[in-house]
Parts: sequence; C-alpha cells; structure tokens
Amino acid sequence: MAKYKMILDLDTGIDDALAIAYALAAPECDLIGIVGSYGNVLVENSAQNSLNLLEMLGHPEVPVFCGLSHSSTTKSFSVMPISAQIHGKNGVGEVELKKAKRQVEKMSGVDFFIEAAHKYQGRLLIVPTGPLTNLAAAIKKDPSIIDLIGHVTLMGGALTVPGNVTPVTEANINQDPVAADEVFRSNLPLTMIGLDVTTRTLLTKEDTKKWRELGTVAGEKYADITDYYIDAYKVTSPHLGGCALHDPLAAAAAVDPSLVDTIYLNMKVDTKGAYAGRTIGDETRINDEARQTQAAVNVDKERFVKTFMKHLTDLFAQN
Amino acid sequence: MAKYKMILDLDTGIDDALAIAYALAAPECDLIGIVGSYGNVLVENSAQNSLNLLEMLGHPEVPVFCGLSHSSTTKSFSVMPISAQIHGKNGVGEVELKKAKRQVEKMSGVDFFIEAAHKYQGRLLIVPTGPLTNLAAAIKKDPSIIDLIGHVTLMGGALTVPGNVTPVTEANINQDPVAADEVFRSNLPLTMIGLDVTTRTLLTKEDTKKWRELGTVAGEKYADITDYYIDAYKVTSPHLGGCALHDPLAAAAAVDPSLVDTIYLNMKVDTKGAYAGRTIGDETRINDEARQTQAAVNVDKERFVKTFMKHLTDLFAQN
Repeated sequence: MAKYKMILDLDTGIDDALAIAYALAAPECDLIGIVGSYGNVLVENSAQNSLNLLEMLGHPEVPVFCGLSHSSTTKSFSVMPISAQIHGKNGVGEVELKKAKRQVEKMSGVDFFIEAAHKYQGRLLIVPTGPLTNLAAAIKKDPSIIDLIGHVTLMGGALTVPGNVTPVTEANINQDPVAADEVFRSNLPLTMIGLDVTTRTLLTKEDTKKWRELGTVAGEKYADITDYYIDAYKVTSPHLGGCALHDPLAAAAAVDPSLVDTIYLNMKVDTKGAYAGRTIGDETRINDEARQTQAAVNVDKERFVKTFMKHLTDLFAQN
Repeated sequence: MAKYKMILDLDTGIDDALAIAYALAAPECDLIGIVGSYGNVLVENSAQNSLNLLEMLGHPEVPVFCGLSHSSTTKSFSVMPISAQIHGKNGVGEVELKKAKRQVEKMSGVDFFIEAAHKYQGRLLIVPTGPLTNLAAAIKKDPSIIDLIGHVTLMGGALTVPGNVTPVTEANINQDPVAADEVFRSNLPLTMIGLDVTTRTLLTKEDTKKWRELGTVAGEKYADITDYYIDAYKVTSPHLGGCALHDPLAAAAAVDPSLVDTIYLNMKVDTKGAYAGRTIGDETRINDEARQTQAAVNVDKERFVKTFMKHLTDLFAQN
C-alpha cells in the first residue's frame, strides 16, 4: 500500500516539536509539509521553530507554510501567559536552535491544505495540534475537500474529563471555538485525540536522559526542550507525574488508529458563555447515526510510549 | 444460577413507573423492594405511587420503603416546575390510580438497602433512578456494604452529551450533587446510564396504543400515563421524536449489561459553581486503573425497545 501523506498543523510548541520528530520517524507516512498556527506562540515563531527543528532532524526538504495569525472571531492574537510558562517564550523551552537555511513557503497554509487534498485525496492525513482556524478556513474556501481528505486526527478537546483552561475547555479548542465547531460539524472524517487520552501518555526525565546520552545535537536539544516541559508539568499538573504527550499521540493515532479506543459521536463545540470551547455530543443529532466523528476514550499507553521512545531515539541517534 | 434480587430507588415519576413494570416482568430478577425518593415528586407521593402501581400490576407483595425527603445539603425539598410539567403534579401524568391497600413499610429505605446488601450480597442489584441521596446515606451508615452489593446501575448524569437542567447537569444528579459525588467516588461497582444513552431509546404513541388496545386496567392506565409524558417531550425535547425511556433502560441494563457499551472511567461529580452536578472523569485519577465505575456510551436501542415492549405488553395483558 502507498504510504500515507501527512500534514501537521502546529503551533510549535514543545509537544508539537515531539510530533514533528514522530512524524519524521514513523515508517507509515511521509511528512509532506507543516502548516504553522498561532497558539503556543505567534504564528511566525511557530513556523520558524518548525523549520529549525526539521533542519536539525535532517529533513530540510519538508516545506513549512504560514497559517492564519489569529482566530476566526478576533482581529489579533497574544500568547497566553500559561502557554509561555509551559513551552517557554520561544516555544521550545528557551533552548537555542540553529536558524534553518530554508524559509517559509510563499503559498499559504490554507491553500496548501486544499492543494494536497486534491492531489493525495484518501491518502492525506491532516493532524492539527493547535487551534482549528486553518482547517476551518480551508473547508470554507473549498468545501469539496471535505469529501477528499483521508482523515483528520486532531489533538484538542476534552469529552470525558475536565478541560485544562476552564473546567470545560481544552487549550487548543479554546483558541477558536467557532472554527472548531465548524470542523466538528462538517462531514470530515475526524478523530479527536483529547485530554481524555493524552493525559494518560506521559514522559519523564528517565526517558529524556536516554536522548541526552546519545551525544548527538538532536538528542541533546530535544532532551533540554522536553525537560523544560516536564518541569512545567510539575507545577501545572503535579498529579500526572510526567509531561503529557498530547501532540505526538495525535500523530501516532493518525497512522495507527489501533492505539486508541474511540466512540462514534456527532459532536459540537459550545461557542458562547460559561461553556464556550467545550467539545460535547450534539443532543440534537443524538439519534442520527454517527459515521464520521470519533472521540478517543482510551489509549494503549504502554505500546504508544514504547513506540514513541523507539522512533525518537532512533531519529535522534542519527542527527 | 440464582436470580438477581433487585431494589429500585425511585422518585415515581412516569419513567419510574415504566421501570417498575420492566423490573416485575424481567425474568432475570426478583424485585424485592422499592425505596421511595424525592425528585419528580415529594417522597411520600413517590412511595404512594409505587404502592399503587405495584398493586395494579398484580404484585402487592413487593414492599415499598420511604427514603429521605430532601438532599444531603438542604433542609427541605420542593418539586421543580419542570418536573411537574413532564410527570404531572401527581407524578403519574394526572392519571388517577386506585389507592393500594398496602402501606409503606416502617423500616427506612436506607436500612432496607443495608439489610438487603448483607442478605443477598453479590446477587443484589440496586437501581437508583432519582437522586443518589438514599444510597449515599446507606454507604455512609454502613460502609461495609460497598464491598457486598453486586452492582449499582443508576439512571443519571451526562458524560458525552449536555445535561437537561443546565448545559452540564442532568436532573437526578442535580438534585444532590454531593451525594452523587460520594457514590461515584466510593468503590461501589457502578454503571452510569446517563442521557448519553437514554435519549436514544424512545417510545411513541404508536407503542402505547398497543397497551390501550389490550383492554386491561394496567394497559389503559399505563397508556394514559405514558401519553402524558410523550406529550411533554414534544414541548421540552421536540428534536427527539418520542419520550426517553430513562429509568427502564437502567433496570434493563442492570439485568442485561450487554444492552449498553460502557467505558471504564474514574468519575466525580462537580459540586460547586457553574459546573455543579456535572458527571465527569476525575483528572486526578486519570492514570489509576478504573475497575469499578463504568459509564454507558452506546446502547442497542432496537433490542432494548423490543424487549421493553414485549415485557410490558405481556405484563399489562394479565392485569
């Protein structure tokens, strides 16, 4: 079977950086491009971080596209203090990375989604791990791609557990609930990888130590970056005992859906009031057969973390 | 195998009345008693309705016990206007029922739970379809019953869909979130049958017509009672296209768990603020193995409604 073609839509971000490494190392897919999003950092910083990481990991051939700079309902975007606390002001844990030679593409991220959907159709996997602003804009600009895209596996939302921004809202969805609602209510084949499962997949400094010991640039830099994230989690989520592998789990579940158990559910995103940003079943469609929208409710965490460590350690050993 | 022994804990209520009929008709269990709860009506009305229905259905031998008259955090209870709208002021759709000869037992509902748990142990099924006040009081009075009771299958809560009182709160849990939280966090073997599944199991007047055509007292009365409920649903939940079989689904899933798909999840109930009454995964126990608490997320609605109609029609034909 021909390999999947994956596009990551990232607000890079530490766990986004881990998702890049996973996507490059996973044998099931070719990473054909990264779309930058605002979120953990400003969109320009996100795109530049992705370029720098790709080059460090020996894959300067992967193009990076610039997405939209703010949500569909606002005129600008500022990074939330909590994002800087978790990811560092520069998005990669205050670690200095060598600036990539390659620059951001001229084509917009939204147009890249549309072009790739027409070109690769059912083989195209889109993995958004930030706000859903870019994907919502793409399906608005060319609704025909809804029936073309192979699958969307997104990191975001919280169905069976509380949110991490408010008791009902997860950070990515919180950035643009209206765009998220459009994506969830569209007919896109979609799997939500939410806090329900990502907070069960954890990394500790026992793991990053193995990367540092490789003695390679990538190994050392990724260990430093991830340790920043692990330290932040000790403050923000001490009950977990590690950092959550949010974004790489979405990349992994995109190429191997058997890593998660899902339920089929027609979903919506609340867009107003105290519940804005909540991802939840749509009670008005509870009796319509749910065919397209799945939410992950359990994860084979041992198998995922083992695969994750193998893929990333092998990649870092060579770079 | 010896039959299950079932106790219903009801705030009778129209769908509670349907649950009584289901429990009497189901071959897998003996209904050994009903505990009355406040909720859809005052506790005295609830107990009296249960007595009247049992006698009409040919089972005056089943004892009815009086539970607590208000929540664990209030000093009194008044029926909510929406409850009267859905169930009628008398709880049974303003239908007049012959007053039973039998009276409410002297033993309290809480003590009956405790006695039955010690007597029947693993064969005891408790099915609360109202507030969880009585069950919480029983496990507080005698915590040893937590390890004795076979299973608790409760109607209440909403995990993957919005609530029906607020966007996060279902009516039964809303009556006493603190008691519900105690029950969910206890080590009771528990399955939550929430709006997630009960709003998928619907009855229409096509169905109740079959009961009326039996020409029996029970058939006619139950048709009248249920038609009131169906009419109320046309106003409160027009998107459903029928009335939800909340409480009988819990009774059915108690004796045949294969009717529902569940996920294992360590759950809690929010007890304060805008989210009070929400049933949700406990993020602080997300990485503790969930062994005791399940939430139903899907239902074999065709099989349930077919079994429900067969059981109730057979029972009504004889009474």
